[in-house]
This record gives sequence, C-alpha cells and structure tokens, in this order.
Amino acid sequence: MAVITLLTDFGLDDEYVGVMKGVILSVNPRATVVDITHGIEAQDIVQAAYALKSSFSYFPAKTMHVVVVDPGVGSGRDILALETKGHLFLAPDNGVLTPLLEDEDPDELVRVANPRYFLDSVSRTFHGRDIFAPAAGHVSLGVPLSELGPRVNRETLVRLSILKPGRPAAGQWTGAIITVDRFGNLITNIDGASLLTESPAGAENAMEIRIGAHLIRGLSTTYADAKPLQPLALIGSRGYLEIAVNQGSARSHFNVGRGDGVRVFAARRGDEE
Amino acid sequence: MAVITLLTDFGLDDEYVGVMKGVILSVNPRATVVDITHGIEAQDIVQAAYALKSSFSYFPAKTMHVVVVDPGVGSGRDILALETKGHLFLAPDNGVLTPLLEDEDPDELVRVANPRYFLDSVSRTFHGRDIFAPAAGHVSLGVPLSELGPRVNRETLVRLSILKPGRPAAGQWTGAIITVDRFGNLITNIDGASLLTESPAGAENAMEIRIGAHLIRGLSTTYADAKPLQPLALIGSRGYLEIAVNQGSARSHFNVGRGDGVRVFAARRGDEE
Amino acid sequence: MAVITLLTDFGLDDEYVGVMKGVILSVNPRATVVDITHGIEAQDIVQAAYALKSSFSYFPAKTMHVVVVDPGVGSGRDILALETKGHLFLAPDNGVLTPLLEDEDPDELVRVANPRYFLDSVSRTFHGRDIFAPAAGHVSLGVPLSELGPRVNRETLVRLSILKPGRPAAGQWTGAIITVDRFGNLITNIDGASLLTESPAGAENAMEIRIGAHLIRGLSTTYADAKPLQPLALIGSRGYLEIAVNQGSARSHFNVGRGDGVRVFAARRGDEE
Repeated sequence: MAVITLLTDFGLDDEYVGVMKGVILSVNPRATVVDITHGIEAQDIVQAAYALKSSFSYFPAKTMHVVVVDPGVGSGRDILALETKGHLFLAPDNGVLTPLLEDEDPDELVRVANPRYFLDSVSRTFHGRDIFAPAAGHVSLGVPLSELGPRVNRETLVRLSILKPGRPAAGQWTGAIITVDRFGNLITNIDGASLLTESPAGAENAMEIRIGAHLIRGLSTTYADAKPLQPLALIGSRGYLEIAVNQGSARSHFNVGRGDGVRVFAARRGDEE
Repeated sequence: MAVITLLTDFGLDDEYVGVMKGVILSVNPRATVVDITHGIEAQDIVQAAYALKSSFSYFPAKTMHVVVVDPGVGSGRDILALETKGHLFLAPDNGVLTPLLEDEDPDELVRVANPRYFLDSVSRTFHGRDIFAPAAGHVSLGVPLSELGPRVNRETLVRLSILKPGRPAAGQWTGAIITVDRFGNLITNIDGASLLTESPAGAENAMEIRIGAHLIRGLSTTYADAKPLQPLALIGSRGYLEIAVNQGSARSHFNVGRGDGVRVFAARRGDEE
Repeated sequence: MAVITLLTDFGLDDEYVGVMKGVILSVNPRATVVDITHGIEAQDIVQAAYALKSSFSYFPAKTMHVVVVDPGVGSGRDILALETKGHLFLAPDNGVLTPLLEDEDPDELVRVANPRYFLDSVSRTFHGRDIFAPAAGHVSLGVPLSELGPRVNRETLVRLSILKPGRPAAGQWTGAIITVDRFGNLITNIDGASLLTESPAGAENAMEIRIGAHLIRGLSTTYADAKPLQPLALIGSRGYLEIAVNQGSARSHFNVGRGDGVRVFAARRGDEE
C-alpha cells in the first residue's frame, strides 16, 4: 500500500487537485492519495511549512508527501525530493522544507531533473500536474529518489528566514501567528516543548502571553479551562503555543491574524513595566 | 473492505482532517476513508446530528461513521461507540446521536475508555486525531466494540433537547431550519413521511407552510414545479420538509437561516386568521 | 481498479457528495472515487463543461466521469451515458458535454433509463444519489452502457450555445472568461493551440489581448515573465488563453469575472484605433 499526501494552495474549487490525482492514479492505480489540505493561503510558504511539519508524522512510514505551494513555478527554482524521518517528500526549493530539516540531515536529498518521470509535455504553469504528480506516482511504485536527479547538499537549499521564532532572553520567547484555524484559534510558531521544559517548574500559571496590547496569564491545558467566550493560551495539538477562546473565536476576540507577533515571558516581570 | 466515514466541523483549510486520515491509515492501511462533510458549522451539534441521520444508511453495511463535532473536547464528556441499524458509530456523548437513536435501542453501546486503542500520547484538544481516528481504525480491523470500554445504557446518554419538532395539534407541525445548503435550500427537521401520511388524502395542495411572515401553499414534488425564482416547499432528498426557490436561493428570498422556525398546517385554517 | 470521478456544483459543506460516494461504494466496494471538483458555481453548466474537458484525459483510460450540474433535475431532461476518447461519462443532457463532443462522434451514447441500475427509490430532487451514483457503480463493475438504456443520436443532444468562442476575422478571436481560479487567474474559452498555430510566426509578442478597456501586449510563457503584480497573458495549463497577474490576482486587477468578454488580435492593428 503506497500512500501519497497532497498539501497545496490550490483550493478545491478548481480542477487542479483532481487532475493531480488523475495523473498519480495513471502512474500507480493502487496509490492511496490523501489530502492534507489545499487551503493554504495562496503562495504562503510559511503556513505550508508548518502545516507539513505538524502532520506528516501521523501517516504511515514511507508515505510520500507532495507539497505544491509554489510561487516560483515556471521560473528557475528547483524541485526537491528527499527522505527524512522515515518519510518521503517532494517540494519546491523555496523554504517550505525549512522547519522539517532544521534538526537533522535528510537520508537522501536530490534535485528532480529526470524527465522520464514527468508527463510527456511539461507546462510552465502547472508543475503539480506535470512533474510533482507523476514523479510521486513513480516513487510510490519503487523508483529510488536517486533516479529522479542528482544529489544536492542541504546547505544549498533556500531557507525560510522570516517569522523564525526568537529567544531574546532567558525565559522569553517571540514568535508569530502562522495560521488561524477554522475555529479562530491562533496557532503560533513558538514551540510548546521549549516553553514547558525551559520554564521554572510550576511556572505555567505565572507565564505571560502578550498579543498586541492584550495579555493572557497562565497556560491552560484545554479549551474548557476558560469560561465560555473567555480567552486562554495552551500548547495546541500541533505542539505550538496557541491562543484560543473557549467556544468562540480568538481571531475575532483579539482582532489579529497571520503574521502578527506574540511574546511570552516565563515569569511575571514585576516592576519592569 | 472497511469503510470509515468522517463527519466533523473541522473544515478543510486546516490539516486536521488529513491528519485523522493519516492516523487511520497507520492503523489500517486498507481502510477506505470517505468524507461525509467537514462543513458543519463550528460546534453545531444539531446540524451534525441531522447530517449523520440523513447519510449513514447510503453506505455499505458495517461502515464505521466517525462524528467529531465536539465542543466539550478535553472536558469530562464521554466518547461513545455503538452499533445500530447495521452500521457502527463513534461520537462524543453530546446529543449528536439523538435523532439516530430515537426509535430503537442500539445493538451495542459502549463508552470508549481503553487506551490500548488510542495514540500513545493523547492531547486534551484533538481527540479526533488521538482517540477517534485510531479507535475507528482498530474497529475496522475487527476489534469488537466491547473491547473499547464498558457498556453503557442508552437512557443515560446526553440528549438533544432544543429544536425538537413539535405537533401542537392534529394536522399541525412545528420545526426549525436545521441546515441551509449550498443552493440556499432551507432544510427543516419536520419529517416528510409524517406530513404525507397524517394529512387528509389529497391535502398536499391545501397544506400551508409558514416561515416567518411568509406563506407557501401546497407541497411540490420537485424544484421545477415552481416558476424560476419562485418559492416552493417539498419533501427534500433527506426526507424532511424543505423550502426552496427554483433556480434561486430560498435563504436570500426569505432572509432566514439556521434555527428559524417553520410551521405547517395540514389544511387551510379558514377564518382562523 | 475502477476509477470514478465526480464533478458537481454541490459544494462540500453539505452531505450530498459523501452520500454519492456511499452509494457508489455500496454497489462497488473496490471503486476508487476521486473528486474533480464540487466547486462549480451553482448550476453553471458552461463552467462545468470546460472543467470536465480540461481534466478527464489526465485520468486512467476507462475512468467513469460523473457530472452532476443539473438545474433540470426532476424535470424531463435526459441523463446520458457515453464512451468517447477512451473514457466513460455520465451527465445530464443539458449541454455540459458540448465541448467534449464537438470534434468527434462518441463510440457509444445511450439515454439512462433502466431502473435496475438505480436506487430502489428515486427522488425527484437528488438524481446524483439515486441514479448517477448507482449507475456509475454498476458500470464500474462491468455493466455495458447498452444495458443502461437505448442508444441516442449525438445530433439530438442539447447543446451549449452561449459563450462559444468566435473568429470574427482572420487573426481575430473573441471569447469569454469561463472560470476565475483561486489565484484570480482569468481562464477563457479561447483555444491556445488556435492562437499559436494560426498566428504569423513570431507574432506572439505583437498579439493584443483586450479585456474590457484594458490591453495586454504579447503572450508570456509563465507567470514570472511579468514583474510582480503586473498583468500578463499566456496559454494556461488548460490549453486556453489565460490572463494573470504575477503573484497577484487578475480578477482584482481588472475587476472582471465570469462571462466577461475577451478579444485577441493576432497582430497590431496599426491605425485602426
């Protein structure tokens, strides 16, 4: 059983995603194709990067994850194929893999270049259909990554630079809202494990989360810890700091959105402000 | 062949649904996972309850239907697994099963409690991923419901109380709009079979359907029975009273929405008003 | 492996698409069902016709494509089943097949009439569930089209008349915007191959594309040929003339939408205006 996931900014109102599935099934009729999401905001590489990092590990080992958020389609940007953490990935070289690759070298990393695994005719506007889909289908049939093209060095890849979370001082974290989900929850790029392990024991209640001019005190463990329509902060299901409103929308409550900054202070700063 | 359906309020713009499918396929790579819908309005248990009742029976016998509309996630609410009407269901104990269970006892009904069938780490915010998906996968592999947890009594379940359709008098029905579909059709919870069997023979044309201050006379059998852009009432494909506008939107025409009341009078009330 | 695609205007917020899949799997549990799109604008037969023509050939040979954009459901309109270009199709007789059939006769063309391949109870409002889905499932099991109903003549079919692209003079083309995709690209029905083969060699740069009062000079080959936020015209991935804005939205830039006209002049018209 070969599983192939798709993660794009194509939306579902056009035929683009369906056509990619048609190409995959034409190459490998036994592939199981699963949508991670096609609702990434158009060309939002950062949002896609975190959605990928938050989801891939829940799929069976050796799943092929195909990411097509690709503002550079038709320009000279490379397409990468790689194996890391027990999964396979196919994505443009535009930084969308940065969070995935930050902690270890991939087992294999190549530049996709072999037209034998493309459609016969390759457009300059829809590589999802013409390159990504057929290449994924062929890999799911057992074609090794090394057949797709030459090895490349991780150090040469395009890296996401913006929105990297920061540690301005011990006990302080800065980050940004990466995604606002359907419930209006504000999902940041501040790592939850870091907040918990690097805070003084029992300091969860003293933690201060600042979003714009607003302050939330303390980390909750689930939405129902707050009263209905009251805000809270917690480590969300992605493993990142998330700001929510119980049975309501934090987006509406705080009137913020993607890209807006969030700061965390591990302990109350007393007289400092 | 094991079929598992998903019915949630997660939407498709986030990775949540994709991740649930990844977990299911990790447990049972041969499962066929089908989306009923993920477009239930956030936390609208009533809408989900009727969508489930209107769809489950069209799937193969023994399909496992997973419902995650779950405002109480992380609180003390139970998760139920049951078998009834030849199908299997997994849902929070929040009333979403009420319409399904109103006419007969389930063949089996348990509270999901056995962590052997959960993910190793269970969050307090995403039980769809951590409990529902793996439990559904295991059941689709043949794990009996009784393995998931202790039997519970149907009488103890949380029941939907609001929006129950009423029969204020013989020949009168009251109900509410449960869903407005993509075409602007207003789908109520007034049972079509009840309207037809309990009306005087031939009374369909004399029936009065009142929605706010508006009146529709007579039951149609299809949209084209009305002139273009004219309203009509019919027994919709769900089997419930539905108010529509031929080639138009009843939502826009009547300016009403979910939760708004609808009344039906089996025969003209003459001088009464 | 039997592949069945679905192309509808049902959207994904209601249970309609899920129910169709349930019916298909009840007939043929081994069918692979793929969504082309359910985001066709309600009852927009023209948009559906071009989405179908642009996508079907990317699926495996003998795929069954089910199109349910069906404003006439419940009226007397026919349902057609056909085989052409190596694929199978099931669609209402309302013109949605016109672009597909314009250049050659189908190998087989029948009117779907045999209730043996329908659900036992056929509503007058949801033939997608009651007729299209079960008929597609049976065909995917090997039932020949001739079993579904009597042969019909292609000449008798309802044809799309509006929005047909025109050739007012040599070197001139007129057409319309059929779809605005998620990125705001304006996809027309002006055939790209015709533009390229019938223009003087090297005339791509002299081509004039007019949309409302706006003028674009020259055909690009990919989005990145224009500067960011600048408009361009190219032959899009569907094979039709497309107007785009690099990293932006042509819909917003030109403030136009579906149905708006587009004119192309193969060479500069000099003094004419």
